[in-house]
Amino acid sequence: MRLRILWPGRTKTAGLRELEEHFLGRIRSLSPCEIIATETARGLDERAAAKILDVEARGLEKRLKDDYIVCLFDGGTEMTSAEFARFLAEREASGRRSLAFVVGGFLGLAERLLDRADLRLSLSRMTLSHELCRVVLLEQVYRSLTLMKGRSYAK
Amino acid sequence: MRLRILWPGRTKTAGLRELEEHFLGRIRSLSPCEIIATETARGLDERAAAKILDVEARGLEKRLKDDYIVCLFDGGTEMTSAEFARFLAEREASGRRSLAFVVGGFLGLAERLLDRADLRLSLSRMTLSHELCRVVLLEQVYRSLTLMKGRSYAK
Repeated sequence: MRLRILWPGRTKTAGLRELEEHFLGRIRSLSPCEIIATETARGLDERAAAKILDVEARGLEKRLKDDYIVCLFDGGTEMTSAEFARFLAEREASGRRSLAFVVGGFLGLAERLLDRADLRLSLSRMTLSHELCRVVLLEQVYRSLTLMKGRSYAK
Repeated sequence: MRLRILWPGRTKTAGLRELEEHFLGRIRSLSPCEIIATETARGLDERAAAKILDVEARGLEKRLKDDYIVCLFDGGTEMTSAEFARFLAEREASGRRSLAFVVGGFLGLAERLLDRADLRLSLSRMTLSHELCRVVLLEQVYRSLTLMKGRSYAK
């Protein structure tokens, strides 16, 4: 299964960027995976929220193909790690479509992207910063792949 | 309110250790806070799980005083960030006891520590690695303090 992980802009916090690299490397030892940093709405004032979400959504849409789309969303479905691993295994079993995880910027995702999602996934009832969210997602994808492949992984 | 955050052993992953420092510095600009890395069960084989949990629990117990104790636990109560901020505000309003967060090692926490907790808190239905869990906790504490103090914080 090909994994594609999309989010607007490169991660700014150095520690989090290192962790992304760390988990991406591990994921790639188990599955093809690419991270795609899409366009950001640079220079726009935060008060122009709708405009920012629109610019970011267009950047993401350009890179989405016939993927099965999972949008990360606070109000989405929560899963345990075992349930998430089963979900990934089902996706892998179900055919050729690649699996795209879409993570929003600091304002989240535009409504039209949430509407397009095959699944809206919540990592926590708590609101994580959009950059921390990226690392938690990668760690869970890696954890789930090790579960699927019967490898052991530090708790 | 004095915050005390206890866990066995220093964080090994460099990127996560940097993030701990980053969030600890921010938390300290809003509230007294100390991180206490307690004894670990070095040299013990993972099969000796009960022994490891016992050694770690003793290390943690030595440093717990008359704190209000929050143990992080997968099966605990989940809160939204707003609920967590309300919880912290209530603790602050309720008196002089310091608030201790206790995070387990890679095997979690001994049953007797969970029994002693005033609150068992779950950060996610997903199982986060014990080191990632530390960073997510610190980020949530910082986020909640900014909410309590009416400061703005990047989403």
